Amino acid sequence: MNPHDIASCLSVNEQGHLTIGGCDTVSLAATYGTPLYVMDEVTIRGALRDFRESMEVCYPNGGTVAFASKACSFKEMYRIVKDEQCYVDVVSGGELYTALSVGFPAEHILFHGNNKTDAEIRFALESGVGRLVADNPADLRRISRVAVQLGKTAAVFMRITPGIDAHTHDFVKTGQLDSKFGFTLENGEALEEVGQALSLDNIELKGLHCHIGSQIFDEKPFEHAAQVMLSFMDNIRSRYGVTLMELDVGGGFGIRYTKNDRPLAIGDYMKRASNALHAVCEQLSYPVPHIYIEPGRSVVASAGITLYTVGGVKHIPDVRTYVSVDGGMADNPRYALYQAEYTAVIANKADQPADTVVTIAGRCCESGDLLQEHTPLQQAEEEDILAVLATGAYNYSMASHYNRLPNPAVVMVGNGGSRVVVKGETYEDVIRNDI
Amino acid sequence: MNPHDIASCLSVNEQGHLTIGGCDTVSLAATYGTPLYVMDEVTIRGALRDFRESMEVCYPNGGTVAFASKACSFKEMYRIVKDEQCYVDVVSGGELYTALSVGFPAEHILFHGNNKTDAEIRFALESGVGRLVADNPADLRRISRVAVQLGKTAAVFMRITPGIDAHTHDFVKTGQLDSKFGFTLENGEALEEVGQALSLDNIELKGLHCHIGSQIFDEKPFEHAAQVMLSFMDNIRSRYGVTLMELDVGGGFGIRYTKNDRPLAIGDYMKRASNALHAVCEQLSYPVPHIYIEPGRSVVASAGITLYTVGGVKHIPDVRTYVSVDGGMADNPRYALYQAEYTAVIANKADQPADTVVTIAGRCCESGDLLQEHTPLQQAEEEDILAVLATGAYNYSMASHYNRLPNPAVVMVGNGGSRVVVKGETYEDVIRNDI
Repeated sequence: MNPHDIASCLSVNEQGHLTIGGCDTVSLAATYGTPLYVMDEVTIRGALRDFRESMEVCYPNGGTVAFASKACSFKEMYRIVKDEQCYVDVVSGGELYTALSVGFPAEHILFHGNNKTDAEIRFALESGVGRLVADNPADLRRISRVAVQLGKTAAVFMRITPGIDAHTHDFVKTGQLDSKFGFTLENGEALEEVGQALSLDNIELKGLHCHIGSQIFDEKPFEHAAQVMLSFMDNIRSRYGVTLMELDVGGGFGIRYTKNDRPLAIGDYMKRASNALHAVCEQLSYPVPHIYIEPGRSVVASAGITLYTVGGVKHIPDVRTYVSVDGGMADNPRYALYQAEYTAVIANKADQPADTVVTIAGRCCESGDLLQEHTPLQQAEEEDILAVLATGAYNYSMASHYNRLPNPAVVMVGNGGSRVVVKGETYEDVIRNDI
Repeated sequence: MNPHDIASCLSVNEQGHLTIGGCDTVSLAATYGTPLYVMDEVTIRGALRDFRESMEVCYPNGGTVAFASKACSFKEMYRIVKDEQCYVDVVSGGELYTALSVGFPAEHILFHGNNKTDAEIRFALESGVGRLVADNPADLRRISRVAVQLGKTAAVFMRITPGIDAHTHDFVKTGQLDSKFGFTLENGEALEEVGQALSLDNIELKGLHCHIGSQIFDEKPFEHAAQVMLSFMDNIRSRYGVTLMELDVGGGFGIRYTKNDRPLAIGDYMKRASNALHAVCEQLSYPVPHIYIEPGRSVVASAGITLYTVGGVKHIPDVRTYVSVDGGMADNPRYALYQAEYTAVIANKADQPADTVVTIAGRCCESGDLLQEHTPLQQAEEEDILAVLATGAYNYSMASHYNRLPNPAVVMVGNGGSRVVVKGETYEDVIRNDI
């Protein structure tokens, strides 16, 4: 398939080379070495803008886009998000620290996590983050306790598990009853705990949060979530006389990893979800709350590719052909973890037909270190540059040092230029903390 | 079960606290913080010594133990291995760099990898590593080419895929035909390529290598491997008139993660494998070669535990109970990757019965971040210290920065004392390479 069908920043130039953001990927590999993460700034900014403009249209009384930075967290990402007038959500002190290190406004940061430490809550409150998302009863009490110690008030969302199964991969579905996340709606825990939140010291309950999963291609689960969450807010109004005016519906918007994935356009998606939400509000006579969304993958995944050098091709007759590359599960563990599908292209033969079927093997000393199995690819040879597409989310952010492989650099491209935004690690970096 | 049954370095003291190497784990958590990797030096040294002494008994004409350092790689490990007069195998420039940084003798290093880069081969040859293990035809030619460039001779093993399925987990079995690793025996590739190795410039073929998998509890696969490999060496002798005098049979010795795992004692294991090997040699009138073994997991797994703090307990009636801890897949991805089984203990209640069944959830913002499901555990409460046992292998070495969680420290204990051997990362470490 044409790489452009996977991501609009990709194309094939006259030399038959894959390009990203107008840059020849073969040249990028030669300049910066491989493995290499490459991300297109125009795509990232375009996605953030699409989300923000859709929110303005859909929620004229107030809507906020918070980039779920766990998908891709490094300084430059926070600069871009800030510049595009979006918020971020962070899930750890490390992400918060990174955001603050580039002057990201703390009041535009949402702090998540099912198991925040006291130190992290202190860090968040002292920094003045906009919202702390309380995940469970223990977390809620811990936030209150730390806030009291600091003499500060915590503006809180409560994360509710709405009991919706969005039918995505087991590892990325989070809205169903059986989840480590959130206050459980079905058994009445959530409603009781709202009472706690309203009475606990130094807690100001601002609203609710839910997140029903990832890689969702259908607006129906969101419509369902809107129905469930607003009904719950209506229950809260009846029970406690409090009309919560903020609702964070999380992320989960699907993206295109292969030609089989068919996500809706962001605008269409948002419009349908918004229509459903407004209808529920009207039906319940509930004022339309300020809506937050938290796209992560859908902002960055399509913007990124990973470039590798092919080291060897092992053809086992009647079994399969392994194409070995100089990276693997250390820079992209998603196939090993979830058997995640990706599209691969030989970057220097991108105009040739993908007429072989191969398994792409990583370089780690482990049989499971595969990047893709039984995938179509151009005829591979040693020294070819292999590109895996749509790796902008959950690749750099999940990278390990397995086999003491230094983490690759991240290069940002846009309008034909390129620049390093995360330096590649050296061997000296790898042993830095060893005594 | 008694923690001592999982690893001999573990015990329970009078306070009912789990101890490792004579140190109270609750005190270790208080001193160093959590999450924390703790490793017992006595266990590591004991395992290396057991292997080395067994090799001396089993192979009086020559046997070498090479620690497979990918299982656990940091400076202090190489110091210990050197001190115990063993070799190491490394699988990347990063591991080689770490070993050399503490003065590990290069001639006692074996360099592996299915996709070594030119730069790594150059590094290995310039450092003077003892053996380069050529994995495949492209790798063999690359080693020759780089050796010619440097005017050096590469002492080489060829890694053979013996076509043995050791019936372990898909991700860790490596000896069967369908493998990214090795020269294929069945189709004649390996025999032809031995001819190449004998004729390529600047290559000195020293012997063969094979590795049939991990977590093997039975000596039968090794006996089978000895049969297959020595028959092949006999074929090489017939075809090329060359009697190869070194054979590396890899690692794969099983360890005890839970009470269901029943590994043989190292000495028994080695004796049985050795008897089989000697019998084959006699049968083929082949001189007993110098044998290398490469234990990794079996040296370090039982020596390590990971300590966490419990943040909250989420009980979902009729579904399950989640016990959340302050680490997870970022410091131990093995459950997420392989559904690997572990034994968990509440360190401050180690004398109490494990009479609840829980799921241990990590702190990453991902549903799949679990450390164990449906596992027996003492009654867990907030602020308890939870220990996961037998995490000495493939935990620290596979750690990621997912959610920008800093990597935990590694503390080495022994004879009641403790010391940091890898410093825990700071937030500043996490953003260090961000531009």
